[in-house]
Amino acid sequence: MNIDKLIDFIKEADKLKSIHRKTLNYHENRYENSGEHSWHLALAILIFAEHANNEIDLLKCIKMALIHDLVEIDAGDQIIYAEDDKKFEREELAAKRIFGLLPTSLGNELLELWHDFEKKETAESQFVGALDRFLPLLSNVLNDGHSWTEHNIKADQVYKKNKPAISMGSTALWEKADYFLKECLSKKILK
Amino acid sequence: MNIDKLIDFIKEADKLKSIHRKTLNYHENRYENSGEHSWHLALAILIFAEHANNEIDLLKCIKMALIHDLVEIDAGDQIIYAEDDKKFEREELAAKRIFGLLPTSLGNELLELWHDFEKKETAESQFVGALDRFLPLLSNVLNDGHSWTEHNIKADQVYKKNKPAISMGSTALWEKADYFLKECLSKKILK
Repeated sequence: MNIDKLIDFIKEADKLKSIHRKTLNYHENRYENSGEHSWHLALAILIFAEHANNEIDLLKCIKMALIHDLVEIDAGDQIIYAEDDKKFEREELAAKRIFGLLPTSLGNELLELWHDFEKKETAESQFVGALDRFLPLLSNVLNDGHSWTEHNIKADQVYKKNKPAISMGSTALWEKADYFLKECLSKKILK
Repeated sequence: MNIDKLIDFIKEADKLKSIHRKTLNYHENRYENSGEHSWHLALAILIFAEHANNEIDLLKCIKMALIHDLVEIDAGDQIIYAEDDKKFEREELAAKRIFGLLPTSLGNELLELWHDFEKKETAESQFVGALDRFLPLLSNVLNDGHSWTEHNIKADQVYKKNKPAISMGSTALWEKADYFLKECLSKKILK
């Protein structure tokens, strides 16, 4: 495989470290970037693997986590509560450009893996998706609901977006999330 | 497996995003942190896998990348050119504390994987080690030798530290690194 194309890709991928998310790091008053988030997600997959609802291919899950946000280099990060009907189109274009930097077979494999993540029809994408929601929820729990307050997000929206997505991939994770959310409600961090 | 222990670990691991390395991101005038570096390394393993000198277990390599720097949460990041005979001791203590947060079997598995990475006796640790050197070298190539200048590192030190480590894991990567270093020498970015 042409190594220069691989180097071009890894140089381009580095830009994900400049994409800022809406959530804070757990221990810093600083917005998380999508590069470090992708690491934290991949590590969480490794750690929580046995709590997936269904049998998963762990390597496939971790690969998915590593590439799941690369489209944001072109398309940006959006809060999950946003209504934006152009998002799909922008991300599809971004995926074609970014994975298109790679040699064809590898580029196609990763493009397919990203489509798999987006569709949430496989055990792997459902488990990765569950943790992709659980980690920022935990950030809010640890930082007094920072992004909920900043974006005026209410409890019904949090439940509506997170309950199906997390419980589909991991019932055990949803039970913990639900417990944390109830604590936030009782402390009025979430309204 | 006790899910609360897993959550404690993933909260602790988040601190790696606050550990700053000596190299700049490729596209930003900002020091890379060890969390985003771990992502970039894991992604690079996936991308460059076929250029490993020996047959590798890809999942093992990626797991290794995800956990290889966690000890820095306690022990800090050091430039590879530093002479520090207490480093091993500090990192060993850190590894025991951090992986010790996990349920025993998983904690032991990851501790062993980290020891494997440190020893560089397996095909996996040699390949991960090669990319762990190649990526910051590329940062210097793209940023006018920033960390070489800042720490007064000369060409003979760069060759001595990088040639064995990179070529042991991937001859193809070393050939590219050597080509880049020669360019830097001719441009007087490296002296």
